Amino acid sequence: MKLYWCPQSRAITALWMMEETGIPYERELIDIRAGSQSTPEYAAINPMMKVPALEDGPVKVAETGAVLAYVAERVPEAQLAPPVGDPKRGDYLRWLFFGPMIEAAFTQKVTGLDLASSTAGWGSYDRVIDVLEVGVKDGPWLLGERFSAADVMIGSSLHFGMMFKLIEPRPAFAGYVERCAARPAFQRSQAMGNA
Amino acid sequence: MKLYWCPQSRAITALWMMEETGIPYERELIDIRAGSQSTPEYAAINPMMKVPALEDGPVKVAETGAVLAYVAERVPEAQLAPPVGDPKRGDYLRWLFFGPMIEAAFTQKVTGLDLASSTAGWGSYDRVIDVLEVGVKDGPWLLGERFSAADVMIGSSLHFGMMFKLIEPRPAFAGYVERCAARPAFQRSQAMGNA
Repeated sequence: MKLYWCPQSRAITALWMMEETGIPYERELIDIRAGSQSTPEYAAINPMMKVPALEDGPVKVAETGAVLAYVAERVPEAQLAPPVGDPKRGDYLRWLFFGPMIEAAFTQKVTGLDLASSTAGWGSYDRVIDVLEVGVKDGPWLLGERFSAADVMIGSSLHFGMMFKLIEPRPAFAGYVERCAARPAFQRSQAMGNA
Repeated sequence: MKLYWCPQSRAITALWMMEETGIPYERELIDIRAGSQSTPEYAAINPMMKVPALEDGPVKVAETGAVLAYVAERVPEAQLAPPVGDPKRGDYLRWLFFGPMIEAAFTQKVTGLDLASSTAGWGSYDRVIDVLEVGVKDGPWLLGERFSAADVMIGSSLHFGMMFKLIEPRPAFAGYVERCAARPAFQRSQAMGNA
Protein backbone atom coordinates (compact mmCIF):
# COMPACT_ATOMS: atom_id res chain seq x y z
CA MET A 1 0.00 0.00 0.00
CA LYS A 2 1.12 3.53 -0.73
CA LEU A 3 -0.05 6.50 1.33
CA TYR A 4 -0.11 9.93 -0.31
CA TRP A 5 0.38 12.46 2.43
CA CYS A 6 1.86 15.76 3.48
CA PRO A 7 3.25 16.93 6.82
CA GLN A 8 1.17 19.49 8.72
CA SER A 9 -2.07 18.27 7.14
CA ARG A 10 -5.10 16.14 7.92
CA ALA A 11 -3.17 13.20 6.44
CA ILE A 12 -1.64 12.65 9.86
CA THR A 13 -4.70 10.60 10.84
CA ALA A 14 -4.14 8.11 8.01
CA LEU A 15 -0.43 8.09 8.81
CA TRP A 16 -1.22 7.08 12.39
CA MET A 17 -3.45 4.30 11.05
CA MET A 18 -0.71 2.95 8.77
CA GLU A 19 1.70 2.92 11.69
CA GLU A 20 -0.81 0.99 13.80
CA THR A 21 -0.96 -1.86 11.25
CA GLY A 22 2.66 -2.79 11.84
CA ILE A 23 3.11 -3.71 8.17
CA PRO A 24 5.47 -2.00 5.72
CA TYR A 25 3.96 0.59 3.39
CA GLU A 26 5.20 3.31 1.09
CA ARG A 27 4.76 7.02 1.65
CA GLU A 28 4.63 9.52 -1.17
CA LEU A 29 4.84 13.19 -0.28
CA ILE A 30 2.33 15.46 -2.01
CA ASP A 31 3.44 18.98 -1.21
CA ILE A 32 0.08 20.69 -0.87
CA ARG A 33 1.70 24.06 -0.13
CA ALA A 34 3.47 23.89 -3.51
CA GLY A 35 0.25 22.83 -5.29
CA SER A 36 1.40 19.27 -6.03
CA GLN A 37 -2.12 18.00 -5.41
CA SER A 38 -3.54 20.03 -8.31
CA THR A 39 -2.27 17.85 -11.14
CA PRO A 40 -4.16 15.45 -13.44
CA GLU A 41 -1.94 12.64 -12.09
CA TYR A 42 -2.96 13.23 -8.50
CA ALA A 43 -6.60 13.90 -9.41
CA ALA A 44 -6.65 10.37 -10.83
CA ILE A 45 -5.70 9.12 -7.35
CA ASN A 46 -8.04 11.42 -5.42
CA PRO A 47 -10.46 13.56 -7.47
CA MET A 48 -10.85 15.89 -4.47
CA MET A 49 -7.13 16.71 -4.85
CA LYS A 50 -6.58 16.46 -1.13
CA VAL A 51 -4.45 14.30 1.11
CA PRO A 52 -4.61 11.62 2.35
CA ALA A 53 -5.20 9.06 -0.37
CA LEU A 54 -4.22 5.43 -0.51
CA GLU A 55 -3.25 3.22 -3.42
CA ASP A 56 -3.29 -0.57 -3.15
CA GLY A 57 -2.67 -2.16 -6.52
CA PRO A 58 -5.68 -1.20 -8.65
CA VAL A 59 -7.58 0.15 -5.62
CA LYS A 60 -7.61 3.83 -4.74
CA VAL A 61 -9.15 5.15 -1.55
CA ALA A 62 -9.72 8.70 -0.36
CA GLU A 63 -11.58 10.40 2.52
CA THR A 64 -9.92 9.73 5.84
CA GLY A 65 -12.72 7.57 7.23
CA ALA A 66 -12.71 5.42 4.10
CA VAL A 67 -8.93 5.00 4.25
CA LEU A 68 -9.18 3.87 7.88
CA ALA A 69 -12.04 1.45 7.16
CA TYR A 70 -10.18 0.06 4.15
CA VAL A 71 -6.88 -0.45 5.96
CA ALA A 72 -8.60 -2.10 8.94
CA GLU A 73 -10.23 -4.70 6.69
CA ARG A 74 -7.15 -5.06 4.48
CA VAL A 75 -4.95 -5.95 7.46
CA PRO A 76 -7.26 -8.04 9.67
CA GLU A 77 -4.31 -9.44 11.63
CA ALA A 78 -3.73 -5.98 13.10
CA GLN A 79 -7.18 -6.29 14.76
CA LEU A 80 -8.06 -2.66 14.24
CA ALA A 81 -11.77 -3.37 13.69
CA PRO A 82 -14.25 -5.79 15.22
CA PRO A 83 -15.06 -8.32 12.49
CA VAL A 84 -18.44 -8.37 10.74
CA GLY A 85 -20.92 -10.07 13.06
CA ASP A 86 -19.16 -8.87 16.24
CA PRO A 87 -21.57 -7.09 18.64
CA LYS A 88 -19.19 -4.08 18.71
CA ARG A 89 -19.40 -3.65 14.94
CA GLY A 90 -22.25 -1.10 15.18
CA ASP A 91 -20.36 1.12 17.62
CA TYR A 92 -17.23 0.83 15.51
CA LEU A 93 -19.01 2.05 12.37
CA ARG A 94 -20.87 4.76 14.27
CA TRP A 95 -17.65 6.29 15.59
CA LEU A 96 -15.92 6.03 12.23
CA PHE A 97 -18.71 8.04 10.62
CA PHE A 98 -18.87 10.40 13.58
CA GLY A 99 -15.45 11.89 12.77
CA PRO A 100 -16.67 14.44 10.20
CA MET A 101 -19.39 15.56 12.63
CA ILE A 102 -16.72 16.75 15.06
CA GLU A 103 -15.03 18.89 12.45
CA ALA A 104 -18.36 20.28 11.26
CA ALA A 105 -19.25 21.12 14.86
CA PHE A 106 -15.90 22.86 15.48
CA THR A 107 -16.29 24.83 12.28
CA GLN A 108 -19.76 25.95 13.22
CA LYS A 109 -18.63 27.04 16.66
CA VAL A 110 -15.49 28.88 15.52
CA THR A 111 -17.31 30.73 12.73
CA GLY A 112 -20.30 31.50 14.94
CA LEU A 113 -22.61 30.12 12.27
CA ASP A 114 -26.21 30.07 13.50
CA LEU A 115 -28.00 26.92 12.36
CA ALA A 116 -31.06 25.16 13.72
CA SER A 117 -30.10 21.81 15.21
CA SER A 118 -32.46 20.14 12.75
CA THR A 119 -30.65 21.85 9.83
CA ALA A 120 -27.17 20.71 10.80
CA GLY A 121 -26.51 17.01 10.28
CA TRP A 122 -24.34 17.07 13.39
CA GLY A 123 -27.12 18.56 15.53
CA SER A 124 -25.08 21.08 17.48
CA TYR A 125 -21.60 21.59 18.88
CA ASP A 126 -22.87 21.01 22.41
CA ARG A 127 -24.54 17.74 21.54
CA VAL A 128 -21.46 16.53 19.67
CA ILE A 129 -19.07 17.13 22.55
CA ASP A 130 -21.47 15.69 25.13
CA VAL A 131 -21.73 12.51 23.09
CA LEU A 132 -17.96 12.42 22.68
CA GLU A 133 -17.49 12.76 26.42
CA VAL A 134 -19.76 9.81 27.13
CA GLY A 135 -17.90 7.83 24.46
CA VAL A 136 -14.40 8.34 25.82
CA LYS A 137 -14.83 8.76 29.58
CA ASP A 138 -14.90 5.09 30.60
CA GLY A 139 -12.11 4.02 28.27
CA PRO A 140 -9.57 3.05 27.75
CA TRP A 141 -10.96 3.08 24.19
CA LEU A 142 -14.23 3.80 22.41
CA LEU A 143 -15.02 0.08 22.22
CA GLY A 144 -13.78 -0.62 25.75
CA GLU A 145 -10.62 -2.69 26.10
CA ARG A 146 -10.15 -2.97 22.37
CA PHE A 147 -8.31 -0.23 20.46
CA SER A 148 -9.64 0.24 16.92
CA ALA A 149 -9.53 2.42 13.83
CA ALA A 150 -12.42 4.35 15.41
CA ASP A 151 -9.96 5.58 18.06
CA VAL A 152 -7.58 6.71 15.33
CA MET A 153 -10.43 8.74 13.83
CA ILE A 154 -11.85 10.24 17.01
CA GLY A 155 -8.51 10.46 18.83
CA SER A 156 -7.04 12.52 15.98
CA SER A 157 -9.97 14.92 15.97
CA LEU A 158 -9.87 15.37 19.73
CA HIS A 159 -6.10 15.79 19.76
CA PHE A 160 -6.36 18.45 17.05
CA GLY A 161 -9.35 20.14 18.68
CA MET A 162 -7.66 20.32 22.09
CA MET A 163 -4.35 21.55 20.64
CA PHE A 164 -6.02 24.42 18.81
CA LYS A 165 -8.51 25.06 21.61
CA LEU A 166 -11.45 24.33 19.32
CA ILE A 167 -12.91 22.13 21.99
CA GLU A 168 -13.18 22.75 25.70
CA PRO A 169 -10.64 20.81 27.79
CA ARG A 170 -12.90 18.43 29.68
CA PRO A 171 -10.98 15.92 31.86
CA ALA A 172 -12.39 12.96 29.90
CA PHE A 173 -10.99 14.40 26.67
CA ALA A 174 -7.58 15.09 28.18
CA GLY A 175 -7.35 11.55 29.57
CA TYR A 176 -8.34 9.94 26.30
CA VAL A 177 -5.95 12.06 24.24
CA GLU A 178 -3.18 11.16 26.69
CA ARG A 179 -3.89 7.47 26.20
CA CYS A 180 -3.75 7.97 22.42
CA ALA A 181 -0.53 9.98 22.68
CA ALA A 182 1.11 7.17 24.66
CA ARG A 183 0.84 4.80 21.68
CA PRO A 184 4.12 4.32 19.79
CA ALA A 185 2.31 4.43 16.42
CA PHE A 186 0.77 7.80 17.34
CA GLN A 187 4.19 9.12 18.36
CA ARG A 188 5.81 7.97 15.11
CA SER A 189 3.07 9.59 13.04
CA GLN A 190 3.34 12.84 14.99
CA ALA A 191 7.12 12.91 14.54
CA MET A 192 6.72 12.49 10.78
CA GLY A 193 3.63 14.66 10.45
CA ASN A 194 5.08 17.59 12.34
CA ALA A 195 8.51 17.44 10.72
CA MET B 1 -33.52 -5.36 12.49
CA LYS B 2 -35.54 -2.37 13.70
CA LEU B 3 -35.21 1.05 12.11
CA TYR B 4 -36.00 4.11 14.22
CA TRP B 5 -37.19 6.79 11.86
CA CYS B 6 -39.50 9.71 11.27
CA PRO B 7 -41.21 10.93 8.09
CA GLN B 8 -39.89 14.20 6.63
CA SER B 9 -36.43 13.64 8.04
CA ARG B 10 -32.95 12.50 7.03
CA ALA B 11 -34.02 9.00 8.05
CA ILE B 12 -35.43 8.55 4.55
CA THR B 13 -31.95 7.52 3.35
CA ALA B 14 -31.78 4.61 5.78
CA LEU B 15 -35.38 3.74 4.93
CA TRP B 16 -34.44 3.48 1.24
CA MET B 17 -31.53 1.22 2.22
CA MET B 18 -33.77 -1.10 4.24
CA GLU B 19 -36.16 -1.35 1.31
CA GLU B 20 -33.27 -2.24 -1.03
CA THR B 21 -32.34 -5.28 1.10
CA GLY B 22 -35.60 -7.05 0.31
CA ILE B 23 -35.74 -8.55 3.80
CA PRO B 24 -38.43 -7.90 6.43
CA TYR B 25 -37.59 -5.34 9.12
CA GLU B 26 -39.44 -3.38 11.78
CA ARG B 27 -39.98 0.35 11.75
CA GLU B 28 -40.47 2.37 14.91
CA LEU B 29 -41.63 5.94 14.57
CA ILE B 30 -39.76 8.53 16.64
CA ASP B 31 -41.78 11.71 16.34
CA ILE B 32 -38.97 14.27 16.29
CA ARG B 33 -41.42 17.16 16.01
CA ALA B 34 -43.01 16.07 19.30
CA GLY B 35 -39.62 15.63 20.97
CA SER B 36 -39.79 11.83 21.18
CA GLN B 37 -36.06 11.60 20.46
CA SER B 38 -35.16 13.51 23.64
CA THR B 39 -35.77 10.70 26.11
CA PRO B 40 -33.30 8.56 28.08
CA GLU B 41 -34.73 5.50 26.29
CA TYR B 42 -33.95 6.85 22.85
CA ALA B 43 -30.58 8.29 23.91
CA ALA B 44 -29.61 4.72 24.82
CA ILE B 45 -30.26 3.79 21.17
CA ASN B 46 -28.62 6.87 19.64
CA PRO B 47 -26.82 9.26 22.02
CA MET B 48 -27.09 12.01 19.38
CA MET B 49 -30.90 11.76 19.81
CA LYS B 50 -31.44 11.91 16.09
CA VAL B 51 -32.98 9.61 13.52
CA PRO B 52 -32.15 7.27 11.91
CA ALA B 53 -30.86 4.59 14.24
CA LEU B 54 -30.88 0.85 13.83
CA GLU B 55 -31.17 -1.93 16.38
CA ASP B 56 -30.16 -5.49 15.59
CA GLY B 57 -30.28 -7.67 18.68
CA PRO B 58 -27.58 -6.26 20.98
CA VAL B 59 -26.16 -4.05 18.22
CA LYS B 60 -27.09 -0.40 17.88
CA VAL B 61 -26.02 1.71 14.93
CA ALA B 62 -26.41 5.43 14.25
CA GLU B 63 -25.09 7.94 11.70
CA THR B 64 -26.61 7.34 8.28
CA GLY B 65 -23.36 6.19 6.64
CA ALA B 66 -22.74 3.70 9.43
CA VAL B 67 -26.30 2.34 9.16
CA LEU B 68 -25.83 1.84 5.41
CA ALA B 69 -22.42 0.17 5.82
CA TYR B 70 -23.79 -2.07 8.58
CA VAL B 71 -26.89 -3.16 6.66
CA ALA B 72 -24.87 -3.87 3.50
CA GLU B 73 -22.57 -6.25 5.39
CA ARG B 74 -25.41 -7.71 7.48
CA VAL B 75 -27.37 -8.70 4.36
CA PRO B 76 -24.64 -9.79 1.91
CA GLU B 77 -27.15 -11.61 -0.28
CA ALA B 78 -28.64 -8.24 -1.27
CA GLN B 79 -25.26 -7.41 -2.88
CA LEU B 80 -25.34 -3.79 -1.82
CA ALA B 81 -21.56 -3.59 -1.33
CA PRO B 82 -18.56 -5.03 -3.14
CA PRO B 83 -17.07 -7.63 -0.78
CA VAL B 84 -13.77 -7.05 1.02
CA GLY B 85 -10.98 -7.68 -1.49
CA ASP B 86 -13.05 -6.57 -4.50
CA PRO B 87 -11.24 -3.89 -6.56
CA LYS B 88 -14.31 -1.63 -6.25
CA ARG B 89 -14.13 -1.69 -2.46
CA GLY B 90 -12.05 1.50 -2.29
CA ASP B 91 -14.50 3.48 -4.41
CA TYR B 92 -17.40 2.10 -2.42
CA LEU B 93 -15.94 3.28 0.89
CA ARG B 94 -14.88 6.63 -0.56
CA TRP B 95 -18.43 7.44 -1.71
CA LEU B 96 -19.96 6.26 1.53
CA PHE B 97 -17.77 8.69 3.48
CA PHE B 98 -18.27 11.41 0.87
CA GLY B 99 -21.95 11.81 1.81
CA PRO B 100 -21.38 14.21 4.73
CA MET B 101 -19.08 16.34 2.55
CA ILE B 102 -22.03 17.11 0.26
CA GLU B 103 -24.17 18.35 3.11
CA ALA B 104 -21.30 20.39 4.55
CA ALA B 105 -20.71 21.94 1.12
CA PHE B 106 -24.41 22.82 0.67
CA THR B 107 -24.50 24.33 4.13
CA GLN B 108 -21.44 26.44 3.43
CA LYS B 109 -22.90 27.68 0.15
CA VAL B 110 -26.38 28.44 1.48
CA THR B 111 -25.06 30.30 4.53
CA GLY B 112 -22.40 32.13 2.51
CA LEU B 113 -19.77 31.03 5.00
CA ASP B 114 -16.31 32.07 3.86
CA LEU B 115 -13.74 29.37 4.59
CA ALA B 116 -10.35 28.66 3.05
CA SER B 117 -10.44 25.42 1.08
CA SER B 118 -7.68 24.10 3.32
CA THR B 119 -9.81 24.86 6.41
CA ALA B 120 -12.90 23.01 5.23
CA GLY B 121 -12.57 19.22 5.23
CA TRP B 122 -14.74 19.16 2.11
CA GLY B 123 -12.45 21.60 0.26
CA SER B 124 -15.11 23.76 -1.35
CA TYR B 125 -18.63 23.55 -2.74
CA ASP B 126 -17.32 23.81 -6.31
CA ARG B 127 -14.84 20.99 -5.87
CA VAL B 128 -17.46 18.78 -4.23
CA ILE B 129 -19.98 19.16 -7.05
CA ASP B 130 -17.35 18.76 -9.77
CA VAL B 131 -16.23 15.49 -8.18
CA LEU B 132 -19.84 14.38 -7.86
CA GLU B 133 -20.47 15.12 -11.52
CA VAL B 134 -17.52 12.98 -12.62
CA GLY B 135 -18.75 10.23 -10.30
CA VAL B 136 -22.29 10.00 -11.62
CA LYS B 137 -22.07 11.04 -15.27
CA ASP B 138 -21.07 7.69 -16.80
CA GLY B 139 -23.45 5.63 -14.71
CA PRO B 140 -25.65 3.96 -14.35
CA TRP B 141 -24.22 3.85 -10.81
CA LEU B 142 -21.21 5.14 -8.90
CA LEU B 143 -19.48 1.76 -9.21
CA GLY B 144 -20.57 1.26 -12.84
CA GLU B 145 -23.10 -1.48 -13.55
CA ARG B 146 -23.39 -2.41 -9.89
CA PHE B 147 -25.84 -0.52 -7.64
CA SER B 148 -24.62 -0.23 -4.04
CA ALA B 149 -25.23 1.39 -0.68
CA ALA B 150 -22.97 4.21 -1.92
CA ASP B 151 -25.71 5.12 -4.40
CA VAL B 152 -28.25 5.19 -1.58
CA MET B 153 -25.99 7.67 0.25
CA ILE B 154 -25.07 9.92 -2.68
CA GLY B 155 -28.40 9.51 -4.52
CA SER B 156 -30.28 10.67 -1.42
CA SER B 157 -28.09 13.75 -1.03
CA LEU B 158 -28.37 14.69 -4.69
CA HIS B 159 -32.12 14.11 -4.71
CA PHE B 160 -32.51 16.33 -1.66
CA GLY B 161 -30.10 18.95 -3.00
CA MET B 162 -31.84 19.17 -6.37
CA MET B 163 -35.31 19.28 -4.83
CA PHE B 164 -34.41 22.20 -2.56
CA LYS B 165 -32.23 23.86 -5.20
CA LEU B 166 -29.16 23.60 -2.98
CA ILE B 167 -27.21 22.25 -5.90
CA GLU B 168 -27.19 23.45 -9.49
CA PRO B 169 -29.18 21.22 -11.87
CA ARG B 170 -26.40 19.79 -14.03
CA PRO B 171 -27.67 17.22 -16.58
CA ALA B 172 -25.49 14.47 -15.05
CA PHE B 173 -27.15 15.02 -11.66
CA ALA B 174 -30.67 15.02 -13.14
CA GLY B 175 -29.99 11.77 -15.03
CA TYR B 176 -28.57 10.02 -11.98
CA VAL B 177 -31.39 11.14 -9.68
CA GLU B 178 -33.88 9.90 -12.31
CA ARG B 179 -32.22 6.49 -12.29
CA CYS B 180 -32.42 6.42 -8.50
CA ALA B 181 -36.04 7.54 -8.54
CA ALA B 182 -36.95 4.70 -10.92
CA ARG B 183 -36.02 2.08 -8.32
CA PRO B 184 -39.03 0.51 -6.57
CA ALA B 185 -37.23 0.61 -3.19
CA PHE B 186 -36.63 4.36 -3.60
CA GLN B 187 -40.29 4.88 -4.46
CA ARG B 188 -41.51 2.90 -1.46
CA SER B 189 -39.24 4.87 0.88
CA GLN B 190 -40.38 8.18 -0.59
CA ALA B 191 -44.04 7.19 -0.22
CA MET B 192 -43.47 6.36 3.46
CA GLY B 193 -41.05 9.19 4.16
CA ASN B 194 -43.24 11.89 2.69
CA ALA B 195 -46.49 10.59 4.18
